[in-house]
Amino acid sequence: MINSYPSKYLDNAIAELAKLPGIGKKTALRLALYLLKRPTEDVELFGNSIIEMRRKIKHCNVCKNISDHDICDICADQTRDTTQICVVENIKDVLAVENTQQYSGLYHVLGGLISPMEGIGPDTLEFESLIERVKSGKIKEIILALSATPEGDTTNFYIYRKIGTIPLTVSAIAKGISVGSDLEYTDEITLGRSIKNRIRFDG
Amino acid sequence: MINSYPSKYLDNAIAELAKLPGIGKKTALRLALYLLKRPTEDVELFGNSIIEMRRKIKHCNVCKNISDHDICDICADQTRDTTQICVVENIKDVLAVENTQQYSGLYHVLGGLISPMEGIGPDTLEFESLIERVKSGKIKEIILALSATPEGDTTNFYIYRKIGTIPLTVSAIAKGISVGSDLEYTDEITLGRSIKNRIRFDG
Repeated sequence: MINSYPSKYLDNAIAELAKLPGIGKKTALRLALYLLKRPTEDVELFGNSIIEMRRKIKHCNVCKNISDHDICDICADQTRDTTQICVVENIKDVLAVENTQQYSGLYHVLGGLISPMEGIGPDTLEFESLIERVKSGKIKEIILALSATPEGDTTNFYIYRKIGTIPLTVSAIAKGISVGSDLEYTDEITLGRSIKNRIRFDG
Repeated sequence: MINSYPSKYLDNAIAELAKLPGIGKKTALRLALYLLKRPTEDVELFGNSIIEMRRKIKHCNVCKNISDHDICDICADQTRDTTQICVVENIKDVLAVENTQQYSGLYHVLGGLISPMEGIGPDTLEFESLIERVKSGKIKEIILALSATPEGDTTNFYIYRKIGTIPLTVSAIAKGISVGSDLEYTDEITLGRSIKNRIRFDG
């Protein structure tokens, strides 16, 4: 193993790079040496763009998605369906749903899922702001688009209980076999659920 | 594919992260979102440590290894054998040879290998400074520790021809390392043995 580097500046940079998820000491060294070969201005641009991102990025006051403004572009978009809210765990999920081009409503980013194991309770997530939006009366449907995990199921159930008394439709994304996947490789629970939730075939 | 992000700051940071070797757009997004969750001071430390590294790192006046001083720690170390120079391609190779603990002499970092295919000629590499060190008369042995590739062989031969008239031993690390593989990925025992079993170079 490589233990000591000939420069404390290199040492510091490698230690910082190795803190990134999925990046070990060896990859960090490779990245650091790559950055050393690039012009100083490029490396300054690299470092400063990351610092600037951390300093200046905001969260949308309405849906809690990241944004450069107080209200994000999706919430500010007058052409979108403002009667629907798709509830997701994080920012990546907003991008994932947007990329399907199957949804034109609004979002609500919880910032995580309820997980007693990891000490994440409802108080640390964006439930209060969701309830407030729902209570405004404009919303007709809440679509729960959370991961098909125990944490996702718990969070789904928690939201359903919280807004059960408010008259609106609550739905959850369908769970079934993935498009293009072989039936024989699908796990039993998923396959079982996809049979239970079968959809009438009308062409 | 994820195409547009809800913030231009995020967009910039992802574009910069994706320039790193081996990091695609998807990994860059994951890294950016990880950095967004960390405290601002941590992210400033991250960015600034990389910028500082690029700005402040020097190259040793003697061996051309990276260093915080004009003369690197290895060249300044009085306990090392100053009659031997191990010629390597880059900084990572110095670390690799050091980690074998089989060598206590000095180094010379060429900064690359001769490669007509990639337009790298002898003029762009640190040959002149090597010849100067050899001509000082103190050096008794040059150990060529270059990758076992056509470029490595060409560079070995070039150095041998250049210093062939100077009375000293020129050796190359034994071809115990597998042909075609990069020095930095060779395991320490093999690399250590190949240094111990180095063979006198006589053309």
